[in-house]
Amino acid sequence: MITLASDFGSPYPAAMKGVMLSETDAQLHDIAHDLPRQNIRAAAFWLRETIPYFPPAVHLAVVDPGVGTDRRALVVRVGEHAVVAPDNGLARPVVRRLADQQSKPTVSAFEITSATPESATFHGRDVFAPAAAAVHQQDHSRLADLEILEPIALEGCVDLTFPDPTVDGETIHGEVIVVDGFGNVITNVPGEHIAGAEWATLEGRSTPVVETFAAVKSGERLLTVGSHGYVECDVNRGRGDDAFGLSAGERFELVVER
Amino acid sequence: MITLASDFGSPYPAAMKGVMLSETDAQLHDIAHDLPRQNIRAAAFWLRETIPYFPPAVHLAVVDPGVGTDRRALVVRVGEHAVVAPDNGLARPVVRRLADQQSKPTVSAFEITSATPESATFHGRDVFAPAAAAVHQQDHSRLADLEILEPIALEGCVDLTFPDPTVDGETIHGEVIVVDGFGNVITNVPGEHIAGAEWATLEGRSTPVVETFAAVKSGERLLTVGSHGYVECDVNRGRGDDAFGLSAGERFELVVER
Amino acid sequence: MITLASDFGSPYPAAMKGVMLSETDAQLHDIAHDLPRQNIRAAAFWLRETIPYFPPAVHLAVVDPGVGTDRRALVVRVGEHAVVAPDNGLARPVVRRLADQQSKPTVSAFEITSATPESATFHGRDVFAPAAAAVHQQDHSRLADLEILEPIALEGCVDLTFPDPTVDGETIHGEVIVVDGFGNVITNVPGEHIAGAEWATLEGRSTPVVETFAAVKSGERLLTVGSHGYVECDVNRGRGDDAFGLSAGERFELVVER
Repeated sequence: MITLASDFGSPYPAAMKGVMLSETDAQLHDIAHDLPRQNIRAAAFWLRETIPYFPPAVHLAVVDPGVGTDRRALVVRVGEHAVVAPDNGLARPVVRRLADQQSKPTVSAFEITSATPESATFHGRDVFAPAAAAVHQQDHSRLADLEILEPIALEGCVDLTFPDPTVDGETIHGEVIVVDGFGNVITNVPGEHIAGAEWATLEGRSTPVVETFAAVKSGERLLTVGSHGYVECDVNRGRGDDAFGLSAGERFELVVER
Repeated sequence: MITLASDFGSPYPAAMKGVMLSETDAQLHDIAHDLPRQNIRAAAFWLRETIPYFPPAVHLAVVDPGVGTDRRALVVRVGEHAVVAPDNGLARPVVRRLADQQSKPTVSAFEITSATPESATFHGRDVFAPAAAAVHQQDHSRLADLEILEPIALEGCVDLTFPDPTVDGETIHGEVIVVDGFGNVITNVPGEHIAGAEWATLEGRSTPVVETFAAVKSGERLLTVGSHGYVECDVNRGRGDDAFGLSAGERFELVVER
Repeated sequence: MITLASDFGSPYPAAMKGVMLSETDAQLHDIAHDLPRQNIRAAAFWLRETIPYFPPAVHLAVVDPGVGTDRRALVVRVGEHAVVAPDNGLARPVVRRLADQQSKPTVSAFEITSATPESATFHGRDVFAPAAAAVHQQDHSRLADLEILEPIALEGCVDLTFPDPTVDGETIHGEVIVVDGFGNVITNVPGEHIAGAEWATLEGRSTPVVETFAAVKSGERLLTVGSHGYVECDVNRGRGDDAFGLSAGERFELVVER
């Protein structure tokens, strides 16, 4: 099984699929191809929140503003999973999450050292897709035997982390990680901080803390623990980003009312 | 085979796919994940118009404004098909259509009684996807043996029907069911009512009745029997909803000119 | 394996998939369903740039402004590939490209002569999908044995070609073939014409010729050889069509600075 994720829109991913299907009969499953364009941080979040639900697979992920520069192309093996991605931090959060899921994770990293690609601007098709197909066809304990892979230290690769919030009693200084396609504002505040509360003040405005969107009227604001386990700022049948005036990367103060 | 339909956009459906692929090696096929958001009525129409073309399969369908409330989660078996959906009417039109396709349909309904889901807001991933995978792995004649399913009466579930038009000779009072992504206005008037006519007056304006879009000039209005078998108000290479000023739920008067 | 491409948006392609899966257990892979609507020329370009990366397969492609008129429906066999499409030129560029890939290509064309379709407006579902399934199930060397196919001469089918640029020394008169979803302006000028140059003047404005987007600052214009092998007019992290004021079909003058 190979999963695909990119910011390529349409129809470019089809060329990647064709390249892979010419080398392997793996099942292909799309994660998304409308990841926020050239936004490594948001894409890394979505990869971490979707890929770990899959059974062991090769995960091809390309959001690559540095395509054609000397940034490296990586394969990171995590147990029976393998992530194929540019060395720009994109793969790091999901690799950590996959490792956390396993009791004795084996994590090893490789640089893809394939020959000059056909194009300088579409390494998804010319570098990452062939590598993902080759990794899929290889016994994962013997990835080092692949000619196109050279072992490297994961520690030397570009890292990317999401900041922890600052917690002072019931006052929390948090940050918006991403806004989803429906305008739900996903923060870095773990849901446990609002557990049991009925109200919390966000940026000076008291807002109900609820378990479901339907707990408030249509068009009204709410705070809830979203499906990722974090505090989300949402609006029932509306857009939380517009109502709260929050976008990715913004910081806010949240005071839980007890 | 499992089909998936939702209003989740991207990338949320990927988590549902991962959950199912962890439990089954079923083929997955997307119906759509851009069903009109939280619009049960429009989504029910599209399910009815697409799912019956598939061979026997499990059909996961989630448009669920009441997620996290006490609305029930259902599995409805129809012969060799099974529909997995919230109990909000979404599944009823396609269930009727699937039953109509079969000579001796066996229809039975079950409530999904699985344990507390991981999240209160993403039952697609935490309730419906695991149930769809379990149903896929089970002999359909023995669904009652699944621990997560409890037999219930379909009659007690939320129903949803599309109204029939009122027909008085050549004067028809109809309603718009949905507008598709291209602006084609799909009504509840069966195509037979305009069969053989060359013109019909819609809301006071005489409009050609044609078999194909190309029968009128680019930008001109037309009435035709669409691929769903209903009268559609369209514009060749344009948007029917804009030209006719009609949207979902609106009523209109149509007078067929004979 | 069957690939699908159309301008049908969502959820219409699902009906085509259901129809095919009722007749065959072929793997289905989407090329795209958001091809530029009713734009045969742009769609033909994208088919040519994606389908040849696939292994031998049946390729269903429907962009069909003339649906329901007397335009023919075609199957074109090219070696082990088969393209199923309306006779409007859509298939011709990819057929030529597939033939060029093979040492001794066997190209043969057939008209689909199936009975009256269920609808006059959705031949994707009612004519092309059943034909694609039937072709998939048939030995390609015996397509003529299929009752729904009648051999015809490919030369008699509607053709579609992309114009060559006019080259006079370092002055090139080219044309925009398509603009992709990110605003990249893809021209008909083969990349070799700017190979080795560092600057070129497009419509009177000197622009850097680079290998990668990242070679210029964010928001700045560039000329590069895109992944299709043609000169592209792009903007790093921006839209080339807006910056250059160019859209599909427009002509321009490019002077390479040596």
